[in-house]
Amino acid sequence: MFSEKMMELGKKRSVIREIFEYGNLRRSQIGAENVFDFSLGNPSIPAPDVVNDVMVDLIKNKPSVALHGYTSAQGDAGVRKAIADNINERFCADAKPELIYMTCGAAASLTITLNALLNVGDEVVLLAPFFPEYRVFVEKAGGVVKTVKCREEDFQIDFLALEEVITKKTKAIIINSPNNPSGAVLNRETITLLAELLNKKADEFGTDIYVLADEPYRELVYNDLEVPYIPNFYDNTVVCYSFSKSLSLPGERIGYIYVSSKAKNYGDLYAAVCGAGRALGFVCAPSLLQYTVKEVLGKTADISVYEKNRNLLYNALTSYGYTAVRPDGAFYLFIKSPEADANAFCERAKKYELLLVPGDDFGYEGYVRISYCVSTEMIEKALPEFEKLINEYK
Amino acid sequence: MFSEKMMELGKKRSVIREIFEYGNLRRSQIGAENVFDFSLGNPSIPAPDVVNDVMVDLIKNKPSVALHGYTSAQGDAGVRKAIADNINERFCADAKPELIYMTCGAAASLTITLNALLNVGDEVVLLAPFFPEYRVFVEKAGGVVKTVKCREEDFQIDFLALEEVITKKTKAIIINSPNNPSGAVLNRETITLLAELLNKKADEFGTDIYVLADEPYRELVYNDLEVPYIPNFYDNTVVCYSFSKSLSLPGERIGYIYVSSKAKNYGDLYAAVCGAGRALGFVCAPSLLQYTVKEVLGKTADISVYEKNRNLLYNALTSYGYTAVRPDGAFYLFIKSPEADANAFCERAKKYELLLVPGDDFGYEGYVRISYCVSTEMIEKALPEFEKLINEYK
Repeated sequence: MFSEKMMELGKKRSVIREIFEYGNLRRSQIGAENVFDFSLGNPSIPAPDVVNDVMVDLIKNKPSVALHGYTSAQGDAGVRKAIADNINERFCADAKPELIYMTCGAAASLTITLNALLNVGDEVVLLAPFFPEYRVFVEKAGGVVKTVKCREEDFQIDFLALEEVITKKTKAIIINSPNNPSGAVLNRETITLLAELLNKKADEFGTDIYVLADEPYRELVYNDLEVPYIPNFYDNTVVCYSFSKSLSLPGERIGYIYVSSKAKNYGDLYAAVCGAGRALGFVCAPSLLQYTVKEVLGKTADISVYEKNRNLLYNALTSYGYTAVRPDGAFYLFIKSPEADANAFCERAKKYELLLVPGDDFGYEGYVRISYCVSTEMIEKALPEFEKLINEYK
Repeated sequence: MFSEKMMELGKKRSVIREIFEYGNLRRSQIGAENVFDFSLGNPSIPAPDVVNDVMVDLIKNKPSVALHGYTSAQGDAGVRKAIADNINERFCADAKPELIYMTCGAAASLTITLNALLNVGDEVVLLAPFFPEYRVFVEKAGGVVKTVKCREEDFQIDFLALEEVITKKTKAIIINSPNNPSGAVLNRETITLLAELLNKKADEFGTDIYVLADEPYRELVYNDLEVPYIPNFYDNTVVCYSFSKSLSLPGERIGYIYVSSKAKNYGDLYAAVCGAGRALGFVCAPSLLQYTVKEVLGKTADISVYEKNRNLLYNALTSYGYTAVRPDGAFYLFIKSPEADANAFCERAKKYELLLVPGDDFGYEGYVRISYCVSTEMIEKALPEFEKLINEYK
């Protein structure tokens, strides 16, 4: 028999996938314009024109063998230099091209880093609510997941709870800010306290604890809010970045790993990243995309649409009586379910053709994720349905 | 400490990489035109124009969100349909779109399939000479490598030797035809005998033994030679394909896995492939490349250059006194080292600025790989040096 574990993983449809399939069914039955699908995290705005212009220019003008040939496994040297420069410019950090490793997107950044870091049985802390695939990635890399719930009032870290789960076996903690699914941005105070706690516990246990900063949503913040750059606060940090959301390129799979130049034994750690990338079969990140992002660093798709959607949705829903923390970033609103069982609430929402995702898989029961990377028109049309839905509970 | 194994893997430069770095040094010292670098397997001919035309057309005309958005994890349904149709047309096979899984190239095809198949301790047979990364991929997936040498006279399978290494724990055998590094194509008789032997041993042990057909070089054959399509000969086959070599797109990372519709429990096996792809962090194959290969199925780069190079190199080297089996495919010539130690021979070759790869890492000592995916001019210029080199042994 082949791997039962992989088979189960392949068979088990994620909840989001189930909802998506249900949505397809309803769209075929009543027309796409009558289904309010808030389930997916697929950017709804086009890539900026400059991305397509750069791609066409590269295809037309860069020699084929240079453009489409292998880059080094770590990524093209010029691309890594540009990214390091960009990091240093934006965050006054000390990034070095030789500590940048180009990847096929955020998921690859995470699996490569986890496989580089973990020995069998090492523990990885996840702050709930968290992206459900983290659990899959950690377990496949031989790790054991430990979860801690963030504070309900603002989705910042609950440090008393966090301190309790950190043990001698804790190898890493994944930080995802702006957060999927809460939209919360961990503020400067939280990151400072986190660094203090991790340093204290690492000293106490005589271990190293790594922060994996999963940052696909870094550029998606509103009101010019600061997203603290974790390597500036905590030394043993690996940044897992992706251009998927900021440039609306999720299908193209392009991102990078940055091993902080302040991390202990950063050279060895970077070597482990290279080894893991190799052993998992990544070879190199797609070359056309590497050369493309180099030319558009600092650019984003027109994310003002998301901010508009957030304001519209948050203001309307809270006025109807829903409870939610106003999201500062990403494109998710995480509302409290008006009944204890978020699954039951999402079932009821289907009556109004509202497709929402229960928070259970994100490690946060009693909450529901609403993705607002959709058209503003759809939100406007859906609002009366949200109102009818909550009125059922009054 | 993070993973020692991954760190070592990242630090250990491959022999090919060492030679490449040495080549860079020499190129800077004496000029690129005076260094005869036969070490790399990077296609030297451009992608066919149609590839770039299709890419530009897609970028200009397909809506951004559709082009650059996530495809399903298995790959776009239309792309998979086109690939299945193409397989069926070419090989009278019974491929189904729902058994095709798009990947980031051949390495990803292999790691995903190995992680789908293997439980810890399962054995995987490699036929030497073999691509050195196979060992890395198998071991990372929890498997144990068993090697068998192919026959020196023609690099077909030595069935007596193969039968000896197949045990109750044998889960898979990797078949790479046309072969890197020998250029050998396993003929119809060999594949027929292989199927018989595997069926016999699987019956004997009451197990399933899978063939992983690693086929990045399928289209690179000369004199219209047949490359038998293994799913037509053996049921439990998974084809790991890549467009890297045939379309000269190795940096773009695009390929696929095809689970034979005749494999036992093919649905479960395909589910395990999906699970492994997910757990390793692949998400989906690059979307632009998926849509591109759909439009150019059956096309190849101008591989006549490789055939010309093969003839030139093989005829000249054997006339000087080198021993080699004439390669029928891929772009490698595997010559017998005129001294027992191929490493010593490759060192000596450097005197003539000839950069060659010893066969040791391919599991075949006393042989040397010469990549002829280089310019014909370079080969012409290098031939007198090859002659001087062998004359040292006369």
